[in-house]
Amino acid sequence: MLCYLNGKLVDRTGAVVAVEDRGFVFGDGVYEVWRVVNGRLFEMERHLDRLVFGLRELRIAAPDIVQPDVFTSVAEQLLASGGLQDGEATLYLEITRGVAPRAHAFPAAGTAPTVFMMANRFVPPNEVRTRGAAAITVEDIRWLRCDIKTIQLLPNVLAKQAAAERGAMEAIMVRHGIVTEGSHANVIGVLDGIIRTHPTTNLILPGVTRAVVLDIARRLGIPVSETALQERDLSRLEELFIVGTTGDVMPIVRLNDQPVASGRPGPIARQLYSEFRAHMDACCGVARVA
Amino acid sequence: MLCYLNGKLVDRTGAVVAVEDRGFVFGDGVYEVWRVVNGRLFEMERHLDRLVFGLRELRIAAPDIVQPDVFTSVAEQLLASGGLQDGEATLYLEITRGVAPRAHAFPAAGTAPTVFMMANRFVPPNEVRTRGAAAITVEDIRWLRCDIKTIQLLPNVLAKQAAAERGAMEAIMVRHGIVTEGSHANVIGVLDGIIRTHPTTNLILPGVTRAVVLDIARRLGIPVSETALQERDLSRLEELFIVGTTGDVMPIVRLNDQPVASGRPGPIARQLYSEFRAHMDACCGVARVA
Repeated sequence: MLCYLNGKLVDRTGAVVAVEDRGFVFGDGVYEVWRVVNGRLFEMERHLDRLVFGLRELRIAAPDIVQPDVFTSVAEQLLASGGLQDGEATLYLEITRGVAPRAHAFPAAGTAPTVFMMANRFVPPNEVRTRGAAAITVEDIRWLRCDIKTIQLLPNVLAKQAAAERGAMEAIMVRHGIVTEGSHANVIGVLDGIIRTHPTTNLILPGVTRAVVLDIARRLGIPVSETALQERDLSRLEELFIVGTTGDVMPIVRLNDQPVASGRPGPIARQLYSEFRAHMDACCGVARVA
Repeated sequence: MLCYLNGKLVDRTGAVVAVEDRGFVFGDGVYEVWRVVNGRLFEMERHLDRLVFGLRELRIAAPDIVQPDVFTSVAEQLLASGGLQDGEATLYLEITRGVAPRAHAFPAAGTAPTVFMMANRFVPPNEVRTRGAAAITVEDIRWLRCDIKTIQLLPNVLAKQAAAERGAMEAIMVRHGIVTEGSHANVIGVLDGIIRTHPTTNLILPGVTRAVVLDIARRLGIPVSETALQERDLSRLEELFIVGTTGDVMPIVRLNDQPVASGRPGPIARQLYSEFRAHMDACCGVARVA
């Protein structure tokens, strides 16, 4: 299979970056993951906009790949090369500050960012969704710019691993008693009939799926309040679910080995997933490329 | 020049890692930097111990390179290949969780960590030390495991860059009004005749130079208190300096464009540097290898 690296489509097995790439020595880069259905990128521009926001915040020069036409063209070639124009896939794009002798401050102006993109076949976790998933809570120990989608993912790695070791799909992070988000998804709870989720501050990533799902909820007339849940609210939730690019809307039915409400996926999560999936299919079907 | 990569000495210009190395996609790794004088690694074992601590905390399998005899042998070959057996140099060692298909949780057991080591000629900043350096303060936005020397260095990169843009050498980080450390050095202040520095908690890296310098201070009879300085203490310090592997003891004489005390290097910083340098030279001279 091919991947895209610094302007070229190359064999993925042999795709490499310099040891002094700032991605490798400083974690100095950003990334995005797109959901692809039938060769069509869901919410292509929203993800691209978030990537550009991250580049701007970190003052990494924006490479050509963030231009929608360039991006779309490369994405289509990658998807075609992998036979991913039908069915489900994901697309990953990472941009780092490039290769330079190791020194903390930014390298010389003109240092070319490193650009890496890969596409992968994807199988949505629909079976788990039907019965609902398990989660645990962990302390949110991340830095204070969680609104930038950087490759500084070690705390997320540790959280996800902690979940896996307890037979759970996701770790829900709690900072100073406040529920922030999952290791790679936003967290939504239903309390007193109201959909509650952390507001988009520096403490969470402003999820694309989160935004779409909240729009759907509002359209359906379900009350939405972007005010964070407290950790102590978790035991009295009517529903709990995570929303993200790979999980879509995923009901959480067990939390720290205790059932959430009835211990089964709730009606709001099921309705939101159903509407979300229909919306994604419509977006990807209507404007299908190639 | 050669570098060491996964068991081999290879030409550094062409040294590369896979795009799916977890160092490159997750910042999932640790590193160390040694000071080398006349081919001899200063405080070799203390740095190696800290690296092993980091690997253990992150549960990255310890590769052979962390065995002191293996490490020393590779380091000597690298230094020899670079003509660095005399004078000043630094040695950089990075270990990541290895190459695996991108997924947050740990990869399959048996995934080999990636090991990268390089040596560089080094010129101590002695001229700046004579007149003293400038620093700025920045908000400490890092994660809550600063005691592990990971490659999650983006906040440090941003802090150092902010300093550079204000003509300063270092950024001193402040979290909730408490002075923690620099972007890649510990911070020491002298207040009411007492040497003050942040205790070794999860909020700072336990610096090797810090430990050596505090030992020297205690031996000299200078009172030492490992209690953090408050940000409001900074304007009434008698002396301020940073301590680290590349800066040794570096007086800070201007902070946020204001002079620190007299605006010249203070007597305690000068004495500690002098004693520290003599100690390092003695360690490296006495036991000189090759």
